[in-house]
Amino acid sequence: MTTLERYSAEYLDRIADSLYSSVLSDILDEAGHRHQVMRPEVRPLYPGAKMAGRAATMLAVAVSELPEQPYRLLMDLLDGVRPGEVVVGAVQGGVKAALWGELLSTHTRALGGRGAVLDGLSRDAWGIEDMRFPVFATGVTPADSRGRLEVIAIRQPILVSGVAVADGDLVLADEDGVVVVPASLEDEVVGRAIEKVAGETTIRDLLRQGTSIRKVFDEHGIL
Amino acid sequence: MTTLERYSAEYLDRIADSLYSSVLSDILDEAGHRHQVMRPEVRPLYPGAKMAGRAATMLAVAVSELPEQPYRLLMDLLDGVRPGEVVVGAVQGGVKAALWGELLSTHTRALGGRGAVLDGLSRDAWGIEDMRFPVFATGVTPADSRGRLEVIAIRQPILVSGVAVADGDLVLADEDGVVVVPASLEDEVVGRAIEKVAGETTIRDLLRQGTSIRKVFDEHGIL
Amino acid sequence: MTTLERYSAEYLDRIADSLYSSVLSDILDEAGHRHQVMRPEVRPLYPGAKMAGRAATMLAVAVSELPEQPYRLLMDLLDGVRPGEVVVGAVQGGVKAALWGELLSTHTRALGGRGAVLDGLSRDAWGIEDMRFPVFATGVTPADSRGRLEVIAIRQPILVSGVAVADGDLVLADEDGVVVVPASLEDEVVGRAIEKVAGETTIRDLLRQGTSIRKVFDEHGIL
Amino acid sequence: MTTLERYSAEYLDRIADSLYSSVLSDILDEAGHRHQVMRPEVRPLYPGAKMAGRAATMLAVAVSELPEQPYRLLMDLLDGVRPGEVVVGAVQGGVKAALWGELLSTHTRALGGRGAVLDGLSRDAWGIEDMRFPVFATGVTPADSRGRLEVIAIRQPILVSGVAVADGDLVLADEDGVVVVPASLEDEVVGRAIEKVAGETTIRDLLRQGTSIRKVFDEHGIL
Amino acid sequence: MTTLERYSAEYLDRIADSLYSSVLSDILDEAGHRHQVMRPEVRPLYPGAKMAGRAATMLAVAVSELPEQPYRLLMDLLDGVRPGEVVVGAVQGGVKAALWGELLSTHTRALGGRGAVLDGLSRDAWGIEDMRFPVFATGVTPADSRGRLEVIAIRQPILVSGVAVADGDLVLADEDGVVVVPASLEDEVVGRAIEKVAGETTIRDLLRQGTSIRKVFDEHGIL
Amino acid sequence: MTTLERYSAEYLDRIADSLYSSVLSDILDEAGHRHQVMRPEVRPLYPGAKMAGRAATMLAVAVSELPEQPYRLLMDLLDGVRPGEVVVGAVQGGVKAALWGELLSTHTRALGGRGAVLDGLSRDAWGIEDMRFPVFATGVTPADSRGRLEVIAIRQPILVSGVAVADGDLVLADEDGVVVVPASLEDEVVGRAIEKVAGETTIRDLLRQGTSIRKVFDEHGIL
Repeated sequence: MTTLERYSAEYLDRIADSLYSSVLSDILDEAGHRHQVMRPEVRPLYPGAKMAGRAATMLAVAVSELPEQPYRLLMDLLDGVRPGEVVVGAVQGGVKAALWGELLSTHTRALGGRGAVLDGLSRDAWGIEDMRFPVFATGVTPADSRGRLEVIAIRQPILVSGVAVADGDLVLADEDGVVVVPASLEDEVVGRAIEKVAGETTIRDLLRQGTSIRKVFDEHGIL
Repeated sequence: MTTLERYSAEYLDRIADSLYSSVLSDILDEAGHRHQVMRPEVRPLYPGAKMAGRAATMLAVAVSELPEQPYRLLMDLLDGVRPGEVVVGAVQGGVKAALWGELLSTHTRALGGRGAVLDGLSRDAWGIEDMRFPVFATGVTPADSRGRLEVIAIRQPILVSGVAVADGDLVLADEDGVVVVPASLEDEVVGRAIEKVAGETTIRDLLRQGTSIRKVFDEHGIL
Repeated sequence: MTTLERYSAEYLDRIADSLYSSVLSDILDEAGHRHQVMRPEVRPLYPGAKMAGRAATMLAVAVSELPEQPYRLLMDLLDGVRPGEVVVGAVQGGVKAALWGELLSTHTRALGGRGAVLDGLSRDAWGIEDMRFPVFATGVTPADSRGRLEVIAIRQPILVSGVAVADGDLVLADEDGVVVVPASLEDEVVGRAIEKVAGETTIRDLLRQGTSIRKVFDEHGIL
Repeated sequence: MTTLERYSAEYLDRIADSLYSSVLSDILDEAGHRHQVMRPEVRPLYPGAKMAGRAATMLAVAVSELPEQPYRLLMDLLDGVRPGEVVVGAVQGGVKAALWGELLSTHTRALGGRGAVLDGLSRDAWGIEDMRFPVFATGVTPADSRGRLEVIAIRQPILVSGVAVADGDLVLADEDGVVVVPASLEDEVVGRAIEKVAGETTIRDLLRQGTSIRKVFDEHGIL
Repeated sequence: MTTLERYSAEYLDRIADSLYSSVLSDILDEAGHRHQVMRPEVRPLYPGAKMAGRAATMLAVAVSELPEQPYRLLMDLLDGVRPGEVVVGAVQGGVKAALWGELLSTHTRALGGRGAVLDGLSRDAWGIEDMRFPVFATGVTPADSRGRLEVIAIRQPILVSGVAVADGDLVLADEDGVVVVPASLEDEVVGRAIEKVAGETTIRDLLRQGTSIRKVFDEHGIL
Repeated sequence: MTTLERYSAEYLDRIADSLYSSVLSDILDEAGHRHQVMRPEVRPLYPGAKMAGRAATMLAVAVSELPEQPYRLLMDLLDGVRPGEVVVGAVQGGVKAALWGELLSTHTRALGGRGAVLDGLSRDAWGIEDMRFPVFATGVTPADSRGRLEVIAIRQPILVSGVAVADGDLVLADEDGVVVVPASLEDEVVGRAIEKVAGETTIRDLLRQGTSIRKVFDEHGIL
């Protein structure tokens, strides 16, 4: 697949429509990549939020005063968002301020961005739900980031909620949480996940009929 | 009441329809059983989830590698689930993996099981909500339990989110949380709870009319 | 504005309809009042809950036995609730019991109260959602406060989830959280917030058209 | 025993010299009182601190401004400390300020007080260690309580670090932590603890010689 | 090296005398084993505690009542302790009771055991310090494990404070914390650690003379 | 005072000898600077550690791989440490790795540095205690920072354990914790603290003689 195809809406929509976070996590587990799932604290801002996209990473840290050029790197990242991307932010330090909000969501969508994933807080929950822009965060607060948080690195590999995320990695987020597929593994993982989803339908039918779970597990190796 | 009746859908539906967790908690409090409510972290996976059932207990612990016979006791418990039961699991250790999911829910329902309560994580939140199977857990994650958690005891008395639960105890869970009624107290507690529910309607009407809350408390002893 | 006007439904409804917590937080930030937002743990009990009102404060603490006159100060406060007020409670100590519930909500509404904000737990989530009474709390539990919590001060300045709240302060709570406007700053803060809301619409339109976020920030100073 | 004897230095020193917290905890456990031990966070301020005394209880809560009569109840309690007493304070709310310090220790000792136990912070760790006044707290901080904490009840039954403490209860604190013996159980518990201490010496000798731990447990019922 | 040599006092003393936890952690890091260090919560019970030994693993879980045969597996493990072993216990669940104490320490030492490492609480801190038996735990409490914790597996691979530990692994614990060397890596890791210790002395001397830290790092690759 | 004098050993030793953290905190409180004390988690690595110095600030964040030029900014800061300075580090993100250790301590002391204060972990506790170099941290671990933490800003204003610290601020740390005096307030705060220390001796004597604490407070305004 070309880079262009990897960022295309067709490809990413197909992933979001046919896959889900738990099946990707299972395939990554089988391949020995057992730390690709963010912690349960990162939750969708509204029920039913789901998205697939490619990571555009940023790292924000606590500050105690307004920098000389506030928001410089945040604006660099956001004005450069490409179609197919998801903004993935690590918000380090315990400061209780929102790094994300409705205006940033509006801007990101206008440029073709598909969502945001934060190891921190957002705000404007109502507006974000109204526009159905998938944001995943550890919570919400009315408090703005101004003079509290500042982005200090963009498009670098960062740790987000326990997962190493590189710019360009595939991110899938849904009701269960957020899973990150390293770009180098993507083709194989996505291919095997599509196969696994097909198999689960058979199993679901067997279980619905009251088949022994041991029998199902022994024969299909899935639980 | 016979054991058969205690596990019957009629009896358990009647409890789920006419009672709720807070009234059972109040009656247990009055009887001196003040530790029968799980911690607030155990939450329904979807709004409106409610159920009453009899505990089928299991205890899972963190493991660092796949056991020789993975899922052995979990499958023993699940293949033996009886109508009227609720799977109640303590997931000890801080491992962030899901002990429960949609396939286990499908199987449990096929055997007449009524829900699941976990002091730990589930997954497949969307599928579980679709089938309206009441699961109560501390959160969700895409990460599977395989090689992370293993059930090491079933149908034993266990501590679940601060409450001692014995196999066969009555469990009622709703939007407010999870309450456990020890089997030996059940007849008296359920009887008194039904009486209390009737009294609360009167009080609600009085308060709606603006009656002093002190007057209501002095005359009815409820607040 | 007279005190009467400040407690009037017209005034408070207008604030709830035209403002939201994040814009009030921004204006307070600009005025140097940077600790007016409660922690993200204080959440609405149901989606869409929103309210503006004037604080009627109370402080509850953990007790280990039933006091001689249980609920004395709680009932004093509640029987004296005035139209336009919001009960704001600090529930200090780690006791996992509910200080609020459906009956208190029914009573408070009957007297013209507009909601409740708690640095602690509520119960009767389903009943409170049914009556659409806006309650903001850190969680829910079936366990009653009886013999676990007792109100020991009312209408005093208290710390609630990190914010100093004085009786009579303006409280606005919505999906994003809870913000407290000290009465002395109210006229100026509310006035400037209304102006800011107007400006945000323009910016939202610019961003929707794909305007550079740096350009918007440089020209309007908002992000 | 008369009340006078219970507060005498002779009696309390004998307890501190011959008993320790774990043996008292064991006897209370056997008698069905299984919640008499404070959480492990309450630690001695210096190695080797140990004391026995009778509880003089106080409850402090977070405040956001200086009260009109600051420290009123704290001073009432402290000026009334009797020989044999230990000040036991619950410091509710997450405020990081010290309720105790060197000057209060100096005063309490001058009146015959034997120590302090806090579910909160102290300060002046070096001065308190210098005077060898046994203080048990959850930590230390330079920050004073002034305008941050205020005592709002004294000599009432309070919950301290998970244990219900009534004024006059026996408190024993050592390297392992803090145990509270309700006054009504004291004679029996202390008597049986003295017996148990004697038995442990025999067991220690057996184990030192390499006797099977199963044999020791089967024959002496202690582990 | 034979198994016998690996459990010998000569070999283990040499490791304890010439190595320390941080140098072993560095070598394991270099070899790609980056999860071999327990969390900082596991601390020595007294200053200066240090030991090297081979893991004898056990797993305890929270229970709500006394089992029929209390302590059965704990006693199996302890009566079978071999010279050179360190008891390594995972105490899963949040129960605040001590799994370890002075009597168990006395017994373990009598059989040639060299210490204990717990992802949980101990008791008898004073007695354990008196006998200088190296115990590493997350804290101390007077409360006994009886009817609160029960060992449910011994000599199995377990997760202890974030590290996978197999029976027989090399454990080194000192003031900095606890590091676990898998038996299969031991010869290489120990060998390289001894080399690294030698190199650090040179660097320490250079730095003491004020040499640039960049120069030291560029030339020796250590910081 | 000239800048030279402010960094002189004479001046800083005099502060360390005659003042302590709690008296500085009190004076800062009185002046309305009520957030100058770090959280109680920042503790001395050995008993009796105390120091005064001028902040040399750095900010480290979690990384998921080794940077191209590891330790670049850390080495810049350390090779430029001036006599009288204390390295003050914010270690953001929950990564459990040590940013500080014995070699860095040796280097810093060789250049005239007086200590280190970290909102994170150190290692080499035994070596640091041996050389009596005052390090204050939230804990210790054997795990190195290499590939886990990277310094990304030096000599900038940063938030450290809740306190805003600017390069050059006065830092005093002792058994009670860490207090930061902004350079602009230093002369006044230090002057008044010296006066207060003198007054406390009088009060200590009064209290030692059994004087009423109310009388002392009314007459001297100190408690």
